[in-house]
Amino acid sequence: MFFVNGESRASIEISDRGFQYGDGLFETIEVINGRPVFLDRHLKRLQAGCRRLSIPAPDLDTLASEAETLSRQSSVGGEPSSAVLKLMITRGSGGRGYKPPDLIRPTRVFSLHPFPEYSHPYHVAGIVARFCDTRLGLNPSLAGIKHLNRLEQVLARAEWCDPAVQEGIMLDINGYVIEGTMSNLFYIKNNILYTADLSQAGVAGIMRGIIMMLSSQQGLAVIEDVVTQRALLSADEVFVCNSVIGIWPVKQIETLHVPIGPVTRHIQDWVNHFKVDHFKREAFSIG
Amino acid sequence: MFFVNGESRASIEISDRGFQYGDGLFETIEVINGRPVFLDRHLKRLQAGCRRLSIPAPDLDTLASEAETLSRQSSVGGEPSSAVLKLMITRGSGGRGYKPPDLIRPTRVFSLHPFPEYSHPYHVAGIVARFCDTRLGLNPSLAGIKHLNRLEQVLARAEWCDPAVQEGIMLDINGYVIEGTMSNLFYIKNNILYTADLSQAGVAGIMRGIIMMLSSQQGLAVIEDVVTQRALLSADEVFVCNSVIGIWPVKQIETLHVPIGPVTRHIQDWVNHFKVDHFKREAFSIG
Repeated sequence: MFFVNGESRASIEISDRGFQYGDGLFETIEVINGRPVFLDRHLKRLQAGCRRLSIPAPDLDTLASEAETLSRQSSVGGEPSSAVLKLMITRGSGGRGYKPPDLIRPTRVFSLHPFPEYSHPYHVAGIVARFCDTRLGLNPSLAGIKHLNRLEQVLARAEWCDPAVQEGIMLDINGYVIEGTMSNLFYIKNNILYTADLSQAGVAGIMRGIIMMLSSQQGLAVIEDVVTQRALLSADEVFVCNSVIGIWPVKQIETLHVPIGPVTRHIQDWVNHFKVDHFKREAFSIG
Repeated sequence: MFFVNGESRASIEISDRGFQYGDGLFETIEVINGRPVFLDRHLKRLQAGCRRLSIPAPDLDTLASEAETLSRQSSVGGEPSSAVLKLMITRGSGGRGYKPPDLIRPTRVFSLHPFPEYSHPYHVAGIVARFCDTRLGLNPSLAGIKHLNRLEQVLARAEWCDPAVQEGIMLDINGYVIEGTMSNLFYIKNNILYTADLSQAGVAGIMRGIIMMLSSQQGLAVIEDVVTQRALLSADEVFVCNSVIGIWPVKQIETLHVPIGPVTRHIQDWVNHFKVDHFKREAFSIG
């Protein structure tokens, strides 16, 4: 189910700069029982991404209203349901080659997808991860934002088809650990939570931000820094996260077994409670 | 004028991975009097790019035949004419997130555009170039190929709107000179031709390859290496090139005036003769 600029359509202009150059941004949003989760945070990140790319941010109220309308369609008759809402914003059509047009009319595309089947058991049982050969390039002008230039992730994810491996860990060209192909990565060592600094590469995920905020609030020290493979492989606990999968403990990296530990379980609890509270607050503010 | 998989269409599926992730490649081809120039070289590069991205290369005969058919439409009644043909190949639709589908059905998109007006006088009079603030990230897995992840070029080209400046020079994140936003860059010092090594960043242009080949044949030494700003700014001559503009001498970089010298003029002549010969050979092989 696709909506382009408010209309039901399954196609986009060939001239759209999203297609021509990957000139745009996206958000992938979990939908529970017909309601988009952490929509406010997704829209704020999208707005920040638009600023970084000098794309005039579409009206947030319009986006929120369309996101909510579309999300409701995933829920039939009040039955419990899950879905994924993807929102793409491009610089629209026009301009001369790479040069953007003087008057930018962004394109907004919503699509609603079934919730991926794999999600639930990995929460509990943990996943197997591998290291990808494809490296992340370094570029401060694009780092952190969820832009549409995703060939590195595509090449990395194409490296394996073994269903026993659920995520690939990506290094930057200097060999530092940045993130998973579709997730951010954390590790715990001596009761400190570590994650990669994303000022040169990577996507600053919504779930990553929530985890860092909640951990700090709970008194767990969080360090955002260079992450070496050596540090990761000697960690006490490791997990990956994103807005759709939540938190997946990593139980194995290549051939190394990693224990699923108490800190990861605490963080899963904090996130679950925060999500429930967030939903109640939103229901209250809407009601 | 747009053609998608052989049919006249102005739109593309939203689910196409070219739109979702920039998962594809493109070629920009000069069309003279209804005939695509250096089509064989463009298709060979496209094929090499497909190999790099593990996209099954579409049948080259089909591509060539479609390119020729569409190019003819730019020429009316045998009048002299110029146009630009853009060919895009994507990994098509399907797959699970970044993971490519097991059976890849690439999408091919042709579009025919008017020849840009600016081209001719800059051949002779030279252009003004500036240094861009936006840097090129380093990534060997994507360097050299003409893929669809072009946000760096978009951001760089958006840095200026002064029509007195025709091209922006892009450095990589280490500060080395790589190329223009839409062109490759050469400089001449003591009768040696220099251009940036593109193993970490940049697009290996068709015109760049022809210039290097012809220069070697003519006994002009060509060195492909790291290019510093300092070396560029102390060059005897500088020029930029691509398949559509041909060769534009650079007469000024920021405030520095650069002479348009005899080596650049020789190379322009070699390329012009090569193009004419190439056309005659092709006409002969077709006739």
